[in-house]
Amino acid sequence: MGKAKRNIYLTNIPLEEAQHQYFSCFPTDEVFLKSERIPVLEALDRVTVDAVYAKKSSPNYNAAAMDGIAVIAESTYGAMESNPKRLKKEKDFIYVNTGGCLKDPYDAVIMIEDIVEIDSDIVEIYSGAKPWQHVRPIGEDIVEGELILFGNHMIRPMDIGALLAGQIQEIEVYQEPQVGIIPTGSEIIEVSERLQEGKIIESNSRMFSGMVQHYGGKPNRYAIVEDDYSLIKEALITAVKENDIVLINAGSSAGSKDYTVDVLRDLGEVVIHGVATKPGKPVILAVVEGKPVIGIPGYPVSAYFVFEFFLKPLLFKYNRQVMPEDRKIKASLTRRIVSSLKHEEYIRLKLGKVGDKMMATPLERGAGVTMSLVKADGILIVPQQSEGYEAGTEIEATLLKSKEEIEKTIVSIGSHDLVMDMLGNLLHKKNPLMCLSSAHIGSMGGLMAMKKRECHVAPIHLMDEITGEYNISYVKRYIKDEKMALIKLIKRSQGLMVPKGNPLNISGIRDLTKEDIQFVNRQRGAGTRILLDYYLKELEIEASAVNGYEREMTTHMAVAAAVAGGTADCGLGIYSAAKSMDLDFVPIAWEDYDLLIAKKDLNNKEITALIDVMKSNEFTKLVEALGGYDTSNAGEIIYI
Amino acid sequence: MGKAKRNIYLTNIPLEEAQHQYFSCFPTDEVFLKSERIPVLEALDRVTVDAVYAKKSSPNYNAAAMDGIAVIAESTYGAMESNPKRLKKEKDFIYVNTGGCLKDPYDAVIMIEDIVEIDSDIVEIYSGAKPWQHVRPIGEDIVEGELILFGNHMIRPMDIGALLAGQIQEIEVYQEPQVGIIPTGSEIIEVSERLQEGKIIESNSRMFSGMVQHYGGKPNRYAIVEDDYSLIKEALITAVKENDIVLINAGSSAGSKDYTVDVLRDLGEVVIHGVATKPGKPVILAVVEGKPVIGIPGYPVSAYFVFEFFLKPLLFKYNRQVMPEDRKIKASLTRRIVSSLKHEEYIRLKLGKVGDKMMATPLERGAGVTMSLVKADGILIVPQQSEGYEAGTEIEATLLKSKEEIEKTIVSIGSHDLVMDMLGNLLHKKNPLMCLSSAHIGSMGGLMAMKKRECHVAPIHLMDEITGEYNISYVKRYIKDEKMALIKLIKRSQGLMVPKGNPLNISGIRDLTKEDIQFVNRQRGAGTRILLDYYLKELEIEASAVNGYEREMTTHMAVAAAVAGGTADCGLGIYSAAKSMDLDFVPIAWEDYDLLIAKKDLNNKEITALIDVMKSNEFTKLVEALGGYDTSNAGEIIYI
Repeated sequence: MGKAKRNIYLTNIPLEEAQHQYFSCFPTDEVFLKSERIPVLEALDRVTVDAVYAKKSSPNYNAAAMDGIAVIAESTYGAMESNPKRLKKEKDFIYVNTGGCLKDPYDAVIMIEDIVEIDSDIVEIYSGAKPWQHVRPIGEDIVEGELILFGNHMIRPMDIGALLAGQIQEIEVYQEPQVGIIPTGSEIIEVSERLQEGKIIESNSRMFSGMVQHYGGKPNRYAIVEDDYSLIKEALITAVKENDIVLINAGSSAGSKDYTVDVLRDLGEVVIHGVATKPGKPVILAVVEGKPVIGIPGYPVSAYFVFEFFLKPLLFKYNRQVMPEDRKIKASLTRRIVSSLKHEEYIRLKLGKVGDKMMATPLERGAGVTMSLVKADGILIVPQQSEGYEAGTEIEATLLKSKEEIEKTIVSIGSHDLVMDMLGNLLHKKNPLMCLSSAHIGSMGGLMAMKKRECHVAPIHLMDEITGEYNISYVKRYIKDEKMALIKLIKRSQGLMVPKGNPLNISGIRDLTKEDIQFVNRQRGAGTRILLDYYLKELEIEASAVNGYEREMTTHMAVAAAVAGGTADCGLGIYSAAKSMDLDFVPIAWEDYDLLIAKKDLNNKEITALIDVMKSNEFTKLVEALGGYDTSNAGEIIYI
Repeated sequence: MGKAKRNIYLTNIPLEEAQHQYFSCFPTDEVFLKSERIPVLEALDRVTVDAVYAKKSSPNYNAAAMDGIAVIAESTYGAMESNPKRLKKEKDFIYVNTGGCLKDPYDAVIMIEDIVEIDSDIVEIYSGAKPWQHVRPIGEDIVEGELILFGNHMIRPMDIGALLAGQIQEIEVYQEPQVGIIPTGSEIIEVSERLQEGKIIESNSRMFSGMVQHYGGKPNRYAIVEDDYSLIKEALITAVKENDIVLINAGSSAGSKDYTVDVLRDLGEVVIHGVATKPGKPVILAVVEGKPVIGIPGYPVSAYFVFEFFLKPLLFKYNRQVMPEDRKIKASLTRRIVSSLKHEEYIRLKLGKVGDKMMATPLERGAGVTMSLVKADGILIVPQQSEGYEAGTEIEATLLKSKEEIEKTIVSIGSHDLVMDMLGNLLHKKNPLMCLSSAHIGSMGGLMAMKKRECHVAPIHLMDEITGEYNISYVKRYIKDEKMALIKLIKRSQGLMVPKGNPLNISGIRDLTKEDIQFVNRQRGAGTRILLDYYLKELEIEASAVNGYEREMTTHMAVAAAVAGGTADCGLGIYSAAKSMDLDFVPIAWEDYDLLIAKKDLNNKEITALIDVMKSNEFTKLVEALGGYDTSNAGEIIYI
């Protein structure tokens, strides 16, 4: 370890308390942002410094509010149906269009529909005009000196219209809060650099930049800084000088190379180090030169939440704007969630409306799994005092997508196959308002989810151990209260994925018992695992005789990645996964991969569209190009 | 009129039908936008063309998930509390930090907290490590070949993070829909030009540009085109060629200079001309070269709604995105609304929470009143089949501001004075989360609104005809069920506003009966009108003896503008209004302008902040600079 130090202990302060304590370091009326004078035409989404009053009235003259004739009201009195009055052009009246100028001596407008043109010079009217009828008087829209906008107001499109109408050409606005973003870490590299072992592409700062833009700030991203005390210190000094808020990413924990907290103690005050949230715990909230400096943990999901917890409110505060409420929705939890009393937990959810019930399915909970954030439709907050929720509990989720989008989404729960992604993509391409959302919990999981009506379709591949037939017997055994159907999707080739050249000469299931072979398995309930168990039983092999039987992955690609990465010598999976990771493949069996669905849902608009995609040439071509698939029955319906 | 033609008749098609009919001219899968390849770093808010799959796994190596030591799992077996095992550095273990690379032969990590360092070379462990414990295997975050994003997906900050992690550097996105905006009209000028009589500043196109940006398009604003058939035609041909959608503003009605519809019939097909909405009726929905071309009416409020009705959905459609639902809120209507069966009406509302009830007060309904849009907190839609609603009806409003903002707003209903704007501005400047929203319906209106608990404060100036005392006797007479108080605000000078130099030599109320003097009055219930009536009665003058007594304006500034514009010779109002319009002023009386409030509300946080502002030097200075005001009692409380 040498002289590297370790501070293992972080505080565990509840989020709300931490927010309150930290934000009160920056009293609203002391938040100082420079202002600048800019053209109104460029002022969209900027914040006014002071109240703005109209320079001129609009209209700035008395304007006709209708197409018609301008008249002198007094000279029209007495006209009536039984005793029409004739008016002479240029003397008693002139023609005006809506918006036209009403000049002395004219003081009223008669609508074109209410006159009769006798000849090109004379018109007849049938009722008198009241003074100023159908006239937009000076200032009807905006009166000179009238308040148009308050100070501290974020300028909207309609405000720009009103400002221009009030003849304001330039406006004093606050500069956007500048947010300095410093990525640190000796292992991270720019996306443009060559990816080597031990290196990770720096992506968090780019996510932060986008969030800063969305929340009304201006991101300034600095170059990557190595894990080095003095380099980090130097970068922070510069960033604090050049920005209103500073983020420093990673190094916020308490490891031997986590210098951030020490540098911040050196440069200013660390208000809080450690908050009782998961993800997001090892955050550092500091003040340097009166400005907020936040140390953000490195895992992408933690980074996202820490930004939402602390940066978003700060940006709204600096912009003097009220933070809009989150959109929420009630939903029924499909799976049990266990959470620790130690922290408030933020769980990513897939949401989908099945029948008339909104269903919430938790996604992976690891802080490192970026895709759990990308895939999430909503967030469930489990309070610190709660140990979690049972399946079936009605929870409230914060929405990350619109309710409409979620309601038009086909929810798929079950087995994983690349083909599902292709199907989803084509469906969405052809019908931008429809989505297919896939949760991967294996075939048995899908069957159970369908039994509980938690999904619209369940992709399954379950071989009957006696008949060798796929899927039908399982459906019959488990779902009895509802008429079901199978939408045939594909046949696919399952086999053993081995490194290129098959160095250990693996030729079949029997080889898995060899002592020098490390296997990697799929999770319990996965069709692929059931397939393995079937063959092990047939060959009378005990599970314990297979090295690595206990190591579980949840997708074919994850198994392939383990083999490609050398942490396993072989795993059971589909041909396309092996091929995409450049592995060799020892075929074992062809299996039927179908979508299970309730018969009554077959005519739903979204399902019809999905079946159309399955039958399309585009789908066939794409899938067959992967290899190891047979699409000849795709879209056929089997009633069970 | 010459050869100009008039098409007086527009269709009256219900909005939803018009939308359906028009949008179906542009089938989603035929909407054609060019795509381009751009760096992921610049792809925020852009829309993917195709599905994007990860190029590389992340992490791309087996990484330590904890700070600690990397070990060979097998060599740690058997270690226990009672029988610790010693490991030698560089042979049995190496130190690793979170994120560090785990290389052969190491296959597990033991946390730093679970080891004891014996010396710089030897550590002791107390339990064995399972293979791959505390290791982030290759692809834990993203697996090579994994689907990251579907096609037709609008890229969010977190998506950029995931794309970079999957080593995607460039991405194919659709070009943003280009929206050509053509302002037309011989009477409109650029804001930079000198404002002359008969000219109006062009502002709608600038509002449209902002809306296009907010809804994901790219605005291309063209120069102003005169009302001339061939010039308009030429401009349209160019704009259709250069854009995906074209807006042409004004000339959409059926007046003699409304060429737009004829040009569009000439160039393409006019699908609909006239929709059953108010505002927004005279819209033109056309197709030219397969692209949407929309003729938008000239009044700013109509223009705004037509954009919302037709352009917003088109932009979402072109971007292949689901339009988010509007935020709605239930509220109680404070005033009766009468609406025609001829159209669906869109009414701008002020919203405010008084006690625990959300109150909705309708704003001016004219299509020309831009400020009704700027001031609006929400919109009430009165269906075509409805004749309106009675006061007290519970309605549902579409929110234009956030609920939080509205809930923190002090609702003021009553008399108008510039001082209220200053007060509101200072309150918001010092407390960005608080707002003061003022509706101007006169002192009596304010008193009645307070009686019905529709507002937090009511600015009033009501003179008792017998005692000459202000406000107290009125409050006692009308509000008996609640303890009330007055917050003293200002004394102000009321008088006759006359043109500079007082050409008609007006010296007092008695002069208003002179035949050559045109007066302009305030609306019924305004304190200023009550003051006038008091003097007329005192002088035994009949209202009918005053020319213009019937002509009503709702603010001091509007009265001043009428005098300044020459449509009236004099009006009663406050000194500051006269001064800001450069008028002369004949003083008549000093009056007390106070805020009426329920006693129990005096300690509300927002009210306390408001009183603080009244007592501040800043407020005093600003108000006294206007002239005609006395602030010496501002902020004092009188219990009634």
